[in-house]
Amino acid sequence: MGRKIVVIGGVACGPKAACRVKRLDPSADVLLVEKGEEISYGACGLPFYLEGEIPDVKELTTTPVGVVRDVNFFKAVKGVDVFLNTEAISIDRKKKEVKVKDVKDGKEQTISYDKLVIATGSSPVRPPIPGIELDGIYCLKTLRDGVVLKEAMSNASGKNAVVVGAGLIGMECLEPLIKAGFKVHVVEKLPFVLPALLDEEMSVPLMKHIQSKGVVLHCGDGVVSFEGSGRVERVVTEKTEIPADIVLLAIGFRPNTSLAQEAGLETGPMGIRVDSHLRTSDPDIYAGGDCVESYNIVTGKPIYAPMGSTANKHGRIIGNNLAGWNSTFSGVCGTGVCNILGFNVARTGLTERDAKKDGFEVLTALCPGPDRPHYMKEAKLIHLKMIAEKYSGKLLGVQILGPGEVLSRVDTAAAILKAGGSIDDCFETDMAYAPPFSPAMDNLIVAANVIQNKRDGLIRSYSPAMVKEKLDRGDDFIFLDVRTPKELEQMRLPYENVVHIPLGMVRKRAGELPRDKEIICLCKISLRGYEAAKILESEGFDREKIWLLDGGLVAWPYEKIVNL
Amino acid sequence: MGRKIVVIGGVACGPKAACRVKRLDPSADVLLVEKGEEISYGACGLPFYLEGEIPDVKELTTTPVGVVRDVNFFKAVKGVDVFLNTEAISIDRKKKEVKVKDVKDGKEQTISYDKLVIATGSSPVRPPIPGIELDGIYCLKTLRDGVVLKEAMSNASGKNAVVVGAGLIGMECLEPLIKAGFKVHVVEKLPFVLPALLDEEMSVPLMKHIQSKGVVLHCGDGVVSFEGSGRVERVVTEKTEIPADIVLLAIGFRPNTSLAQEAGLETGPMGIRVDSHLRTSDPDIYAGGDCVESYNIVTGKPIYAPMGSTANKHGRIIGNNLAGWNSTFSGVCGTGVCNILGFNVARTGLTERDAKKDGFEVLTALCPGPDRPHYMKEAKLIHLKMIAEKYSGKLLGVQILGPGEVLSRVDTAAAILKAGGSIDDCFETDMAYAPPFSPAMDNLIVAANVIQNKRDGLIRSYSPAMVKEKLDRGDDFIFLDVRTPKELEQMRLPYENVVHIPLGMVRKRAGELPRDKEIICLCKISLRGYEAAKILESEGFDREKIWLLDGGLVAWPYEKIVNL
Repeated sequence: MGRKIVVIGGVACGPKAACRVKRLDPSADVLLVEKGEEISYGACGLPFYLEGEIPDVKELTTTPVGVVRDVNFFKAVKGVDVFLNTEAISIDRKKKEVKVKDVKDGKEQTISYDKLVIATGSSPVRPPIPGIELDGIYCLKTLRDGVVLKEAMSNASGKNAVVVGAGLIGMECLEPLIKAGFKVHVVEKLPFVLPALLDEEMSVPLMKHIQSKGVVLHCGDGVVSFEGSGRVERVVTEKTEIPADIVLLAIGFRPNTSLAQEAGLETGPMGIRVDSHLRTSDPDIYAGGDCVESYNIVTGKPIYAPMGSTANKHGRIIGNNLAGWNSTFSGVCGTGVCNILGFNVARTGLTERDAKKDGFEVLTALCPGPDRPHYMKEAKLIHLKMIAEKYSGKLLGVQILGPGEVLSRVDTAAAILKAGGSIDDCFETDMAYAPPFSPAMDNLIVAANVIQNKRDGLIRSYSPAMVKEKLDRGDDFIFLDVRTPKELEQMRLPYENVVHIPLGMVRKRAGELPRDKEIICLCKISLRGYEAAKILESEGFDREKIWLLDGGLVAWPYEKIVNL
Repeated sequence: MGRKIVVIGGVACGPKAACRVKRLDPSADVLLVEKGEEISYGACGLPFYLEGEIPDVKELTTTPVGVVRDVNFFKAVKGVDVFLNTEAISIDRKKKEVKVKDVKDGKEQTISYDKLVIATGSSPVRPPIPGIELDGIYCLKTLRDGVVLKEAMSNASGKNAVVVGAGLIGMECLEPLIKAGFKVHVVEKLPFVLPALLDEEMSVPLMKHIQSKGVVLHCGDGVVSFEGSGRVERVVTEKTEIPADIVLLAIGFRPNTSLAQEAGLETGPMGIRVDSHLRTSDPDIYAGGDCVESYNIVTGKPIYAPMGSTANKHGRIIGNNLAGWNSTFSGVCGTGVCNILGFNVARTGLTERDAKKDGFEVLTALCPGPDRPHYMKEAKLIHLKMIAEKYSGKLLGVQILGPGEVLSRVDTAAAILKAGGSIDDCFETDMAYAPPFSPAMDNLIVAANVIQNKRDGLIRSYSPAMVKEKLDRGDDFIFLDVRTPKELEQMRLPYENVVHIPLGMVRKRAGELPRDKEIICLCKISLRGYEAAKILESEGFDREKIWLLDGGLVAWPYEKIVNL
């Protein structure tokens, strides 16, 4: 008989590690225990099951040709013994044994191991808010959760839904709730949605989009209590009270570390500590997936980044190492993508806020623009923000969102981050170009150019937030809006200190502008604003006084007058 | 007066270089000459103008807000003097003068320069085939070409169109021709379409798609003559004769190097030679865009890769250097993307054929699969081929095609190529994952895993072409098809040596299989085929005899029986 390998946890990392080691070492005796009723399912598909895109939840447990990945499948195809409804309750590292309990009949038994894998995943955060035990308050993590929530959605007595937490899961569930006819409120402690993914200025267009779909956002507000008799009827927040027939708790996930912790393994607040081999502090125990602390390749620091994609990679690496190989995993960069009511959002690396918190001095670019050449009918707007380290020019992160295409930009940036690349590498990346797909100068390349220009002293710019501060302080400056008169009619800043000279006239009419005041140049997206700034400089204006508004009017998140 | 900079050529690189240097050095006197009637237009949009997606060809000459980029625009906004209809006819490098001719009145004059930029672009190849001077034979390069061809398409006396050359332009023009009601024939010298972009096995699904849209492909056939009286009436090829009311010559483009050559600048067959500063052999003359030889960062060798995206980058680098900076461009990797009648095709780096020609020993992966999790309705098939250097595992190239999403995969691969990354880097890239966008293990990551497995000796596989050879030779082997009975009904190999055992039964029924013959395992896409191979190995079969069919039935380009 071969070495005995025991895997705890059956969703993504666990099955992957079990099957991989069995393929590499058929003599190994591989046993997997899972406390739930299903194994190897696509939990990330749950919002699409709720929405009706996936008619039967069972589809999340099948292979692409419709074979159910059940206990028999794992035995017959993978050669792995799977025990469902079996919870690991303790690990005796000296004896190399795991005590497990049948969750149905409570019977316990002990399983010995040569090597152990902990892939216990994560659990939704359920804070001890008064009333949290009421009926009608749901989380979304397991298939069971999905089925229960879907049933609740169709049986709810009224049509008021409250989503607590504006993270990925909460945002992905807006569409199913709206499609099911609910009036949806979102309560988020922080002042904007997707706060872990985005900077506030990037969240603004997303929030406008969500609101335009009828969702009521309560950002910067917290839940005080859930009220109702038996069943939740309303959510009381710090600022208001919201009627609720169902509540989705989507505050986030916490790594399931107690088993590891009780066994004396090193853990941190972000999960079980593992080295680059995904080995815990005990060399005979590996851990991977949502229960471990990841390593952020951009900061060199731990990060909690539970992702199905990473869990699968962890499983492969662990499988290799269980077979006696020497495989390492270098880390993640916090990439995420989602579609929220038709609006795409993607992020990789650090936000500006994260980067500054980590002590980086940064340069940023805020570039709204079409995702394809403007002459193509299917061109759609995307907002792109890039963050780079000021001196080295090293790329730190990218956020992209809008109705347009975001995936190619975020993945390209993730590959550049993996290589430790700079904005110069970004500019030089030979991205694919054809009008049905992308502009000749891709949005990512334009953003890299903007940061190059800032690094090289060609642009001196203010972010929208900095300009807002100047306005609030009552600073004496003027805006120079260089758009066409027609554009001006459609949208403009509502301030008195706005001078309008179309770009083509700036050279001729520069004399009309004051030379003793700061001039903040802008256009729709600030490309023409940049031209205007360069013209003023070439006309002898004091370059210390010439500024650009980052991202132009499109990225301006404050007041503007819009006539459509 | 500042330094005098003269730029020859007004489409992409030229205007970009002119504007960039003027922004960096407003004291410079920048003059641009263009022999055509337009400047700075989006030539890549022409197929979409033909198709009707772009109603007015003028849209290709405007900025995103509708301002026409004409002579006045360049003067007023950019501070650049533009002379249209002005052809540069010779360069006197000693005197530092360019002789130009007004193409309308023939008047010549001489312009002196301190620094010169050659951005003369490329011209369509027009081989001296008998009858090529007949009316009704068109090329597509300039706006004028577009207008003429569009008119010809609506005025043609009949509805037979022949496209000569199955490269990017020819393929992009299939849709406009079909939409205009033409019966379209394509004549291509090489045995498959997009031969410069794809390996033959990858071209097969594309050819099937094109044929399914009614296009008649004549691959491996060449044009002998065009016949007709005054106007083309038919195309005579080596193998047949095709009626033709219009002919689109799309054989490729040749760099316009004669001006540089006559001035004694170093040129090669792939264009004007430039160093990494885009400086020609004369330090006062720069060149960029479609007229220069590019550098392939994968091979370290020259490549001809005319692309609007690269031309824009060249322009920026040249502008920097004209201003006295020290900017370099590291090269391209031959990235391309296009949409052909709804079928996406993308490539970056080397094809297998290119790589072998360049002396690389390679490992390849052929991975068809859905572009999103199979449970998502919008999931669509993509075929992905990855090529890596055998020993180092360095990524060499990727081809992706199908109805599904290709852009994110090709751009990610291009970023990895830029960084000189390996298949291990590819596996570790933190690509964005969410079901509406991509599978948990992205197709690119799966392909990297397949090559890792081959490198690590876990898979021994045959490409479809190798298996076809074995069949043709009459080798004694069996196919082991491990798909479900239902899948078998839908599609199967038409050979007698196929044994069918569903994957779940392989472990149990392994005894039915011969131990003295080669067994080639397969399924739909060969993931289950791989499982089967590992099962047979674990059952004691001689691993020298166990093989996998790369890419499975989906990638099998030869005979198969399909019952839909």
